Amino acid sequence: MFRMGSIAGRTVLEVDGAFHDAATLAADETLADLMTAVSRFTELSALSEVARASGAPVSGPLGVCVPRPSKVFGIGLNYRSHASESNMELPSAPLTFTKFPSSLIGPTDDVVLSGDAVDWEVELVMVIGAGGRHISRDTAWSHVAGITLGQDISDRGVQFTGKPPQFSLGKSFDTYGPIGPVLVSVDAFADPDDIGLWCDVNGERMQDARSSDLIFDVPHLISYLSGICTLEPGDLIFTGTPDGVGMARGRMLRDGDVIDSGAEVIGSLRNRCVKS
Amino acid sequence: MFRMGSIAGRTVLEVDGAFHDAATLAADETLADLMTAVSRFTELSALSEVARASGAPVSGPLGVCVPRPSKVFGIGLNYRSHASESNMELPSAPLTFTKFPSSLIGPTDDVVLSGDAVDWEVELVMVIGAGGRHISRDTAWSHVAGITLGQDISDRGVQFTGKPPQFSLGKSFDTYGPIGPVLVSVDAFADPDDIGLWCDVNGERMQDARSSDLIFDVPHLISYLSGICTLEPGDLIFTGTPDGVGMARGRMLRDGDVIDSGAEVIGSLRNRCVKS
Repeated sequence: MFRMGSIAGRTVLEVDGAFHDAATLAADETLADLMTAVSRFTELSALSEVARASGAPVSGPLGVCVPRPSKVFGIGLNYRSHASESNMELPSAPLTFTKFPSSLIGPTDDVVLSGDAVDWEVELVMVIGAGGRHISRDTAWSHVAGITLGQDISDRGVQFTGKPPQFSLGKSFDTYGPIGPVLVSVDAFADPDDIGLWCDVNGERMQDARSSDLIFDVPHLISYLSGICTLEPGDLIFTGTPDGVGMARGRMLRDGDVIDSGAEVIGSLRNRCVKS
Repeated sequence: MFRMGSIAGRTVLEVDGAFHDAATLAADETLADLMTAVSRFTELSALSEVARASGAPVSGPLGVCVPRPSKVFGIGLNYRSHASESNMELPSAPLTFTKFPSSLIGPTDDVVLSGDAVDWEVELVMVIGAGGRHISRDTAWSHVAGITLGQDISDRGVQFTGKPPQFSLGKSFDTYGPIGPVLVSVDAFADPDDIGLWCDVNGERMQDARSSDLIFDVPHLISYLSGICTLEPGDLIFTGTPDGVGMARGRMLRDGDVIDSGAEVIGSLRNRCVKS
């Protein structure tokens, strides 16, 4: 079991609420690089035990735990409840867009609003640790380094401009991809296919669901996507959002709003919205 | 003026038809890395002059000239002729998807067909050299390290599955992004907004157009995209394909087909189609 994050751009492991520098623990400077650490995720549980015995805690604000993914997959309409509130048919295959990696920010960074049609979408995010092509459902979870939490912030104006709609750009403004606070190894979850997640805006509960309601579950997504693209360590999969988004409520994000996102085991994000 | 490519994973400069190792020319090993060389594109013209005077030619097959872009933008329906043959309305803003970077291959690599609905799309590809946000039309060309040629190979079955259609996945199968043979500095073109490009399949001319027919020209694309995302060195923009694709001809790619793509000044790609 491990919990991996980023402080001052270096890999840290969270143990009993304290953060430890992974490269120092391992006496291996290459582990300071977050993308290297993700690709060597099978070493991080043992290293967390070292930290428990003889750690050297570090402190500072948490940054982006996976800062340079080669691919970021976003999945649309992947909770039955959200497809229903969006008045969309259930998809026959995972609807896939990208959030360009330049949109990623850390767990307490500000979201810079691009206008007055910006929405929240809390999501679980899979971090690929072991790449591959044509991965089977049965082995899919073994390719996941860990699970983190994300917000798929969406400019609905840009998203629904044009035919076909522009999911990738509408969800890729700089700062529209908060992730974190850490990525947590799969063995930390009682059932990784059934994780509770929620989102509050200014303290009001807007989304509250469990990932057991996914239309296409994580093994399905990994199997499907790896049938098309070679998955690589550090690739992210935003797995989709449940119901309760602003678009369905007639309530968009405004300057000063605070988005609190949470998930069982993983922890929480707090992102303040600011005007550009 | 420079022409930059990749041999054995290292940066090379093409001068008078010969290739020279950039790091050796500069006595700077960091320039061997292709993404570093793209970000230092302003040094490559002078280095090409060094090669002309006292080069040390190297040889070998050309690889992917920009192997690890952080973002690959694809633009749909950006030639009037192609929008017309596709029976689609002219877009009001650039229709933007991604080709995931794992799809990129070199100028003579094989395209591995994902089925019997795979199509060609020859395109000019902009390679960003100097990043930025909110780049103006007037300064846009100064952010381009060079122009290369690409094929936006597309599985029409996957692309047009579901609502909305799945541009990003349908165009991201491994091997569906041949680029090259080299990227060529903007000053090598008499008019970078008017470049001829074409595509032959088994020797038959299928596409033949000029980039002056783009609906959204390169300065427009760079200005628009950088208004949403911070552009970074090495980002690629596939600028769209002209008319003459297989979908409009009722002719898809088959095992053994040879796709010859060409563009003025840049050169050509030759990719053979093979069954998976």
